[in-house]
Amino acid sequence: MPKAVVLLSGGLDSTVTLAAAIGDGTEPVALSFRYGQRHSRELDAAAAVCRHYGIRHMVMDIDMSSFRSALTDGGMEVPSDREGDLSREVPSTYVPARNIIFLSMAAGICESIGAGAVYIGANAVDYSGYPDCRPEFFDAFRRMLAEGTKAGTEGRAVEVRTPIIGLSKADIVREGKALGAPLHLTWSCYKGGERACGRCDSCLLRLKGFREAGIEDEIGYEV
Amino acid sequence: MPKAVVLLSGGLDSTVTLAAAIGDGTEPVALSFRYGQRHSRELDAAAAVCRHYGIRHMVMDIDMSSFRSALTDGGMEVPSDREGDLSREVPSTYVPARNIIFLSMAAGICESIGAGAVYIGANAVDYSGYPDCRPEFFDAFRRMLAEGTKAGTEGRAVEVRTPIIGLSKADIVREGKALGAPLHLTWSCYKGGERACGRCDSCLLRLKGFREAGIEDEIGYEV
Repeated sequence: MPKAVVLLSGGLDSTVTLAAAIGDGTEPVALSFRYGQRHSRELDAAAAVCRHYGIRHMVMDIDMSSFRSALTDGGMEVPSDREGDLSREVPSTYVPARNIIFLSMAAGICESIGAGAVYIGANAVDYSGYPDCRPEFFDAFRRMLAEGTKAGTEGRAVEVRTPIIGLSKADIVREGKALGAPLHLTWSCYKGGERACGRCDSCLLRLKGFREAGIEDEIGYEV
Repeated sequence: MPKAVVLLSGGLDSTVTLAAAIGDGTEPVALSFRYGQRHSRELDAAAAVCRHYGIRHMVMDIDMSSFRSALTDGGMEVPSDREGDLSREVPSTYVPARNIIFLSMAAGICESIGAGAVYIGANAVDYSGYPDCRPEFFDAFRRMLAEGTKAGTEGRAVEVRTPIIGLSKADIVREGKALGAPLHLTWSCYKGGERACGRCDSCLLRLKGFREAGIEDEIGYEV
């Protein structure tokens, strides 16, 4: 089976993406990052998902503590309670160049272990304003890999696959269920409590997705 | 003064690039990486160069120990004694996606601290076979930043500047001298001994550059 590297945060989207990679017939290696997140709840979820599938889980440290973002900076407020206002502005949870850095690391690992593709659970439908989740970005990233890597100059650049980029959150939930993904093990909340807060942008999007899909979200919520 | 981030390995090329950034009137922040190099001799040199200029030096850890390369893998031989054979093949010292990862991190820091440009000491003349040192790669990287960052989508993408990309090694030495760069503090050797080995690809290129420039290289060599 061809090897692939799957970026796995431990959230809903990346877990369904991992399920899609397995469905594509790849032998996946999951890759997570410790990048100065405020909490490790997501990484715990990623580890649980990998145990569920019995696949290799690489966790790499990248010091992004000096990158300005509400996700890594304890002094910034995580936005919440704005379900009606998920506008097209770049939110404060934007971490500069985060997906660029994660994809670059994944591409380097692919080239090192002989994997032909990176999977990333980016989504451009329930658009949260992140520039590094848009199809235009991934196209430009693919062209950059073709020019800047040994594999690329040899005409076999690492592929960047975004299987859920065109799906609504409800469709992602449905797809996850259809693929048998362990959605009950995933963590989406920006906060790191015992239970998901149910109020941050990420919880609101997730709840809306399950509701519209008519599927019960089995994780517990505070509200 | 506009801020800039300068990738500084501690070698000749990146030190002359730093001198060029200062010459451009920027306020530089130097950025080095601990990425699993076999030795820390280069990082010591980078620190000495920053002390010389009295500028801020950020050293970030990136775990690239699983990336296959003679620079990070203790089991691979660093090539040496092939002065007549610096061919266009990608050498074993190629670290997959290394410049891509370094530039991505630098771009993220730029966006976080409000710097408008990254300087990188890549060179495409004394070409050592690295795909991520070619102008075509930097053009593709610039387009990718324009699509994938907040600054880029706002029309003020971080610039990627390669001031020495078109210079021969001899011209880099001359330029460094003209700019008053502390060339005697730099380290180019792939090995980490007390003195440079004088035999690896990097030493051979450096020695050739000083010789052709007619300038004495003040660092000591084993041979």
